[in-house]
Amino acid sequence: MFPNHGQPLVTAPAETAILSLLLAEGPLSRVELARRTGLSSTAITKAARPLIDDGYLHELPPERTAPGAGRPVNPLAVTVEREFFIGVKISADALYAVACDLRAGLRATAGRSLGPDRSPAAVCALICEFVELLLDAEPAFRERTRHLGIAVSGDVDRAAGEVRYSVLPGWQDVPLAAMVAERTGLNVIVENDVKALTTTEHWFGEGIGTEYFALVTIGAGIGSGLVVDGRLITGAYGVAGEMGHISIDPAGPRCHCGQTGCVEAFASSDAILAAVREGTGRPDLDFDGAVLLARGGDPAAREAFARAGRAIGTGIATLVNLFGPERVVVTGEGLDTYDLLGTHIKDAYAAHAFKAAANCPLTLRPLPWEEWARGAAVLGIQALFP
Amino acid sequence: MFPNHGQPLVTAPAETAILSLLLAEGPLSRVELARRTGLSSTAITKAARPLIDDGYLHELPPERTAPGAGRPVNPLAVTVEREFFIGVKISADALYAVACDLRAGLRATAGRSLGPDRSPAAVCALICEFVELLLDAEPAFRERTRHLGIAVSGDVDRAAGEVRYSVLPGWQDVPLAAMVAERTGLNVIVENDVKALTTTEHWFGEGIGTEYFALVTIGAGIGSGLVVDGRLITGAYGVAGEMGHISIDPAGPRCHCGQTGCVEAFASSDAILAAVREGTGRPDLDFDGAVLLARGGDPAAREAFARAGRAIGTGIATLVNLFGPERVVVTGEGLDTYDLLGTHIKDAYAAHAFKAAANCPLTLRPLPWEEWARGAAVLGIQALFP
Ligand SMILES: [Zn+2]
Ligand SMILES: [Zn+2]
Repeated sequence: MFPNHGQPLVTAPAETAILSLLLAEGPLSRVELARRTGLSSTAITKAARPLIDDGYLHELPPERTAPGAGRPVNPLAVTVEREFFIGVKISADALYAVACDLRAGLRATAGRSLGPDRSPAAVCALICEFVELLLDAEPAFRERTRHLGIAVSGDVDRAAGEVRYSVLPGWQDVPLAAMVAERTGLNVIVENDVKALTTTEHWFGEGIGTEYFALVTIGAGIGSGLVVDGRLITGAYGVAGEMGHISIDPAGPRCHCGQTGCVEAFASSDAILAAVREGTGRPDLDFDGAVLLARGGDPAAREAFARAGRAIGTGIATLVNLFGPERVVVTGEGLDTYDLLGTHIKDAYAAHAFKAAANCPLTLRPLPWEEWARGAAVLGIQALFP
Repeated sequence: MFPNHGQPLVTAPAETAILSLLLAEGPLSRVELARRTGLSSTAITKAARPLIDDGYLHELPPERTAPGAGRPVNPLAVTVEREFFIGVKISADALYAVACDLRAGLRATAGRSLGPDRSPAAVCALICEFVELLLDAEPAFRERTRHLGIAVSGDVDRAAGEVRYSVLPGWQDVPLAAMVAERTGLNVIVENDVKALTTTEHWFGEGIGTEYFALVTIGAGIGSGLVVDGRLITGAYGVAGEMGHISIDPAGPRCHCGQTGCVEAFASSDAILAAVREGTGRPDLDFDGAVLLARGGDPAAREAFARAGRAIGTGIATLVNLFGPERVVVTGEGLDTYDLLGTHIKDAYAAHAFKAAANCPLTLRPLPWEEWARGAAVLGIQALFP
């Protein structure tokens, strides 16, 4: 019933083009598909045939056309229930899992705090528990789910399916894909969470149809993902999009990465908290306390957030000057304090964007945790492609 | 005898792949071409046929093969004299022009200082004079030259063939391509000089075969060009690769672009000269004088160059952390003072490159002015492609 486990569903360029357009944009007529792909109508019809036969595409009823507008057309559409995908996001203290359909529509979710044992084995067991839970959520899920995506904050070797390093203590060179695949029987893809989310926003969110696209996450860490020509930039040495670790001030604080003046050294939640503690002389504060102080008008606390906002805005301007995205989506749990950061982000961005680069809009997009797990599920949808 | 004026020579993907491989890498057998492109041998033979018939490719004599290694193979090669290309580089005070063959080999050069009249009309007249001169350099040139590339430092709208802004006084929204095309009868392509040089290095220089590649120029201005998946990044709003105008120090000097702390505000020749003048209290110095002072050991002059080197190294690290190029080529007339800048560039780069990004090598490549004009000629070779 299914193509080979883990093999791409489409390989020919024409099939690839049709399926990706229909996934991202919804139903389109063959004429429209031909126009958009530059292929002939015959090539479209030929390429669509196996996808229809396999149940991935179907024809919609003819659209009513204006009198004299020629014969009615039957748009092609993705059959969203043809296959389902599970996505898991591992955060520092919790696990979130979702089941999605073919167009990344959320169908079921699950979430739980991690227990005191956060070892790879314990987390792997919890992932497998969630997978079972989700596969039972709808009768069709178990039969039609082949792919499981896992998104992890940290350094991931996607090709090897290994987590090189993560925020979780003791996670080093963990062969997570193999561990989970063995127990679930699914094809498992492991990826850095920001990269997975960037691809998802590019395919199914604010980035649809953009040639150059960037996503920036703010919060516990500062990250970014860059898309060029529809492909996520991964870097020749596995490093790319490290907006958190570009240096914006030689006199800036020392970063945990060992460098000085990184954006993250100003703008991560820990960096902000440290600055508030130092500025107010209150080492007892936690992050929520720091936020309350700043919202209450404490000048030192406010300045710590302002400094973080300026660092983020300068970092985004740098990214935009080098790479010229059509838009930048800003997301992450740091948006919870956007009232304290926002104007400083915008002002620094405007002050440092070069000429026409300033036309690139920043789009705020608060994403709940389920969205990060959805990003992981999209790793499975990507696996349908070569 | 020629394809349509200004039309691509190749359009089909297979022809495009074959011609670009043979241009960049030299003669290859059909078997090797099939392996590299993923096409069948039959597809290679079929796609090569029209290019052989048109005289762009030819078969080399059979290669001697080891006994028992199968029948001898006839590698395919580009017929470099099939078509010639003229390239012109307009700098602030001089004009350089070259004629190149199909593989960007230099065949003839010409150069001259600009006179006091540097208006578009005067420069256009000089370009046309140089074109005539070069077309007369070899008997075949006039008959087999269709394309003229012009590289200009400044803001160029390549699609419109217009120079929006350049270093030359009074150059604003100049329809240079149309002006020169009308007088020469050639197909004229106008491009920013750093972008043209980046493409040339990627096709025919240090960047051959790299997927992610960057070129940085230092000197009167600081610029960069970025290649991803074989394509120059141009930016959604026409701005990209502006390494000169990323902010690396909020306490840095004001830049001519209006921002503060740009790399260029530390590291352009003018910025270095201003810093040496200020540091030494000698407003009479010119750039050569500043260099002499620094080489003579004057601490203030040396510090001005060191500061410039640190800015360049930090800028390159930023570029590398965001893009992850396979290598970075550093060039430009600023390399003349590499003895004063070099260690500071390297130290700042090493201090700010994030983790594995530091594996990306910096390659110094001093390029004489003819190479910039060669970069312009390659715009014409590019025009053979869709
Ligand atoms: Zn850092
Ligand atoms: Zn600037």
